[in-house]
Amino acid sequence: MDRDQVEELRSLQDTLYFIGGKWRIPIMNSICNGNRRFREIERSIPGITTRMLSRELKDMEANKLLKRNVYPDTPVLVEYEPTEHCRSFGGIISEMINWGRIHRDIVVRKENK
Amino acid sequence: MDRDQVEELRSLQDTLYFIGGKWRIPIMNSICNGNRRFREIERSIPGITTRMLSRELKDMEANKLLKRNVYPDTPVLVEYEPTEHCRSFGGIISEMINWGRIHRDIVVRKENK
Repeated sequence: MDRDQVEELRSLQDTLYFIGGKWRIPIMNSICNGNRRFREIERSIPGITTRMLSRELKDMEANKLLKRNVYPDTPVLVEYEPTEHCRSFGGIISEMINWGRIHRDIVVRKENK
Repeated sequence: MDRDQVEELRSLQDTLYFIGGKWRIPIMNSICNGNRRFREIERSIPGITTRMLSRELKDMEANKLLKRNVYPDTPVLVEYEPTEHCRSFGGIISEMINWGRIHRDIVVRKENK
C-alpha cells in the first residue's frame, strides 16, 4: 500500500485538534458568510458568549485564519476578514452542512420506525 | 439571500455534535481504510483505550454508521463493517487530512520566521 496511514492519521488529528471545540467552525462559517464585525458574528451564532467569541477570534488571528482590520474612524471600526487559509476550509464546512442534513434525516427515520 | 443560514448553522452544528470527541473520526477513518476487527482498529489508532473504542463502536452501531457482523466460528469472529452513511463521510475525512497537512506547513512556516 502506497498510502502512509500513520501520516494520514496524524494530519487528520491535527485538523481535529485545530477545529476542536464547538465554536471554531461556526465562527469560520459566519465570517466566510460575510459577517465582519464582532456584533454581527456574535448575533449570527446563538449561544456563543462575548468572552468565547473574543478568545476564539484572537486564536484564529494568531493561526492566520483571519485578519483583524482596524479603521481609525470615530468610533474605531474593527473588521475581521477571512484569509485564504480560512476560505480553504469552506468546502469542508459545506459538506458538513449537507452531511448534517442527511444524518438528521436518517436518525429521524430510525426513530419513527 | 436564498440560503437559510439559520438552517445551515443547525445542520453544521448537528454534524459537529455528532463527530464530537477526538476518537469518532479516526475510528471512521480506520474502518473505511479496511480495518474490521476490534484489535485491528485499536492498533491503528495510537492512544485509544479499549474502553473508549468499545463505547464508540456501540454508539456508532446505534447511529447506523457501522454494522456489527458476528460469525459463529470457534472462537467467535466479530467484524465491523462501514455503512454507506459512514462511507459518505469519507470525502470530508480526506479533505481534513489534506487540510491538516497544509495547516501544519503554514504554522511551521510562521514559527520559523
